[in-house]
Amino acid sequence: MNYQDVLFLDKHDPLAAKRQEFSLPADCIYLDGNSLGALPLAAHKRASEVVSEQWGNDLIQSWNKHQWIDLPRQVGEKIAPLVGAAPGQVICCDSISVNLFKLLCSALHMQPDRKLVVSQADNFPTDLYMVQGVSELLSSERCTLQMVSEDTIENALNDQVAVLLLSQVNFRSGKLLDMQKITQKAHKKGILVIWDLAHSAGAFQVELDQCQVDFAVGCGYKYLNGGPGAPAFLYVAKRHQQFVQQPLSGWMGHKAPFKFDAQYIASEGVQQYLCGTPPILSMSVLDAALGVYEKLDMDLLRKKSVGLSELFMQSVDQYEVLSDLHLHSPLQAEHRGSQLAYQHPAAYAICQNLIARGVIGDFRAPDILRFGFTPLYLRYEDIWQAVKILAEIIGDKTYLDEKYTTEQKVT
Amino acid sequence: MNYQDVLFLDKHDPLAAKRQEFSLPADCIYLDGNSLGALPLAAHKRASEVVSEQWGNDLIQSWNKHQWIDLPRQVGEKIAPLVGAAPGQVICCDSISVNLFKLLCSALHMQPDRKLVVSQADNFPTDLYMVQGVSELLSSERCTLQMVSEDTIENALNDQVAVLLLSQVNFRSGKLLDMQKITQKAHKKGILVIWDLAHSAGAFQVELDQCQVDFAVGCGYKYLNGGPGAPAFLYVAKRHQQFVQQPLSGWMGHKAPFKFDAQYIASEGVQQYLCGTPPILSMSVLDAALGVYEKLDMDLLRKKSVGLSELFMQSVDQYEVLSDLHLHSPLQAEHRGSQLAYQHPAAYAICQNLIARGVIGDFRAPDILRFGFTPLYLRYEDIWQAVKILAEIIGDKTYLDEKYTTEQKVT
Repeated sequence: MNYQDVLFLDKHDPLAAKRQEFSLPADCIYLDGNSLGALPLAAHKRASEVVSEQWGNDLIQSWNKHQWIDLPRQVGEKIAPLVGAAPGQVICCDSISVNLFKLLCSALHMQPDRKLVVSQADNFPTDLYMVQGVSELLSSERCTLQMVSEDTIENALNDQVAVLLLSQVNFRSGKLLDMQKITQKAHKKGILVIWDLAHSAGAFQVELDQCQVDFAVGCGYKYLNGGPGAPAFLYVAKRHQQFVQQPLSGWMGHKAPFKFDAQYIASEGVQQYLCGTPPILSMSVLDAALGVYEKLDMDLLRKKSVGLSELFMQSVDQYEVLSDLHLHSPLQAEHRGSQLAYQHPAAYAICQNLIARGVIGDFRAPDILRFGFTPLYLRYEDIWQAVKILAEIIGDKTYLDEKYTTEQKVT
Repeated sequence: MNYQDVLFLDKHDPLAAKRQEFSLPADCIYLDGNSLGALPLAAHKRASEVVSEQWGNDLIQSWNKHQWIDLPRQVGEKIAPLVGAAPGQVICCDSISVNLFKLLCSALHMQPDRKLVVSQADNFPTDLYMVQGVSELLSSERCTLQMVSEDTIENALNDQVAVLLLSQVNFRSGKLLDMQKITQKAHKKGILVIWDLAHSAGAFQVELDQCQVDFAVGCGYKYLNGGPGAPAFLYVAKRHQQFVQQPLSGWMGHKAPFKFDAQYIASEGVQQYLCGTPPILSMSVLDAALGVYEKLDMDLLRKKSVGLSELFMQSVDQYEVLSDLHLHSPLQAEHRGSQLAYQHPAAYAICQNLIARGVIGDFRAPDILRFGFTPLYLRYEDIWQAVKILAEIIGDKTYLDEKYTTEQKVT
């Protein structure tokens, strides 16, 4: 493919206009929307309204006047179609970590005779940490983490296992698991399944209901563009809602939160997973950000995501100087999320050098360069340029400069 | 006291200039800053910076460039002096409810031979609910809630009690408990004490270290003016930090969060109470809001808080039509926080009528009118006017109009 072909792709991109709905920095190719999504103009506008008008002017009355009280449900229902959930199953609240704690406790409570929680050994660490926290609290008699490699998940499914906790897309490699097949196999062994959608929700159409998933969590600040640390969401399948309980029983999860009763009585439905007062500013911004997904054809989104990824891979292959980059992601698009990982011994320095050149990617220890593809605001031309710059950096060995060494980075 | 005296008080108020640091709605007397603090100009400015520049322009790099990663610690250290805590003991994170869960689990873990958690029967409900959640999860053998009236707290302290969980200021009555005396008595019986500072922090100087408190939680959106649903904070006394553990072991509480190890190792110090990614926008706004407390003389703040409250009480006494209002708060200032509660059979309708007249107070079921006094942005004249309007409403019985009836309200 040559540059003219790339321009042709952009010109005929049915999602091209979506880019206009974002505020993007100049002179920057942003391949890290899977860490922190870009700023939607609607989110910018809402932030300003919530601060000046709702908080500043209407003050406490905004809980009713601007329906702050309904935000967790409202945002949940906006996310629901993106993850293939019928209404009444998704709610926005807390962080992924806190939500995992709630769901792990719920699921273990439903499995009184089983204690094993199976997860990927290279799941995102906080998922594993939360299981360890539950285990410490309840004792290993009630909860024991068993870590398995992604290739052996299905072998680990037996009737000792209480819960299977998996990230649908691996945060490092981008490997996409077969949600339907794995969930089905787990259910055959009586295992409840929690899917972490951090790198799936908003990246492609997820099908929770169709796959008969039991529980799920997901992130508001990656593909959903909800802003830094935007609240997370959780999903509880309708069929479980009347049997579940969860221990973070704060006032917002109460059946009658304004009665100020001393006795906790859980709300019905997924609302029982609410706990304390949510960060209204952050949640409002996520609410507005979700507007960019309205009436979006998710097939087009996925098609462009694959197109951007394939272009990246093909472009890398065109540069001889990039032959030391080793693809750490699955080769076939159907086994990948919306990101690519490449191994290189100098990945850290290369990542820093890329950033200095205006190409924002991600480093993941020990040797991974990670590039995220967000079809809503990336152009094919961006991909072309990014790989060109990557080739220059590696070809000219500019990354060896010592200024590209020590720093910290966040997911 | 007459109107001229009131104007004199405002003219000589050493905190009068602080009002200029807030954006306040026109034609409104806001006596509900203890539910949701008003908007500081600095918070407004920061919200705009975080959205446009930090998120919009610097994107993922802001975690380092704008020190998002340090916000929980930084905000905690800004709150610390307001609650009398030496550095390294306060951290900003999650909600009060979630933080109570962490601390309850920590405290119970330190008391393996005791199971009782004593609390005020009329504590804010979420405090009681969180104990009930822990009890459900761990069994009543490990955690049992015992509710006592505020008058009998000290009688309930015996060597069966693991944890004493108290709100320093009662959310309804405004009654202020003697933190030093109660904490000391509890310690003599080997009881660990958790104080909820929701209605104390920022209302007057709290003395956690001096009172040898074990644990505390507090709210960012009331007197601290951090915006709707601003993240909460928690305090863990230095002497306990090396012995504690808490079950919400998310990635931010890890000793080396960027190593992406599969094994959770808790951070040392109060950082181990962090869990998931915080809502950066909401937390940044709280960070900026705390600027109004910088170099503030807390004695002046308390003095004005008492002055506003006393003026309110005296003014009520001056109107014969207000003789049906029954003071539900302690008569003496030293036993009150920064709010007053009055009982009236028609409290709900009166509250609605007040709001319609531009006086924003609070209704608390079943029959309480609650008025909060925030010395940073209230004038003595506001109090004078508010009581005048209250007298008109009750004198003219306008509150009997049926439009002042059904609605919901949030703390």
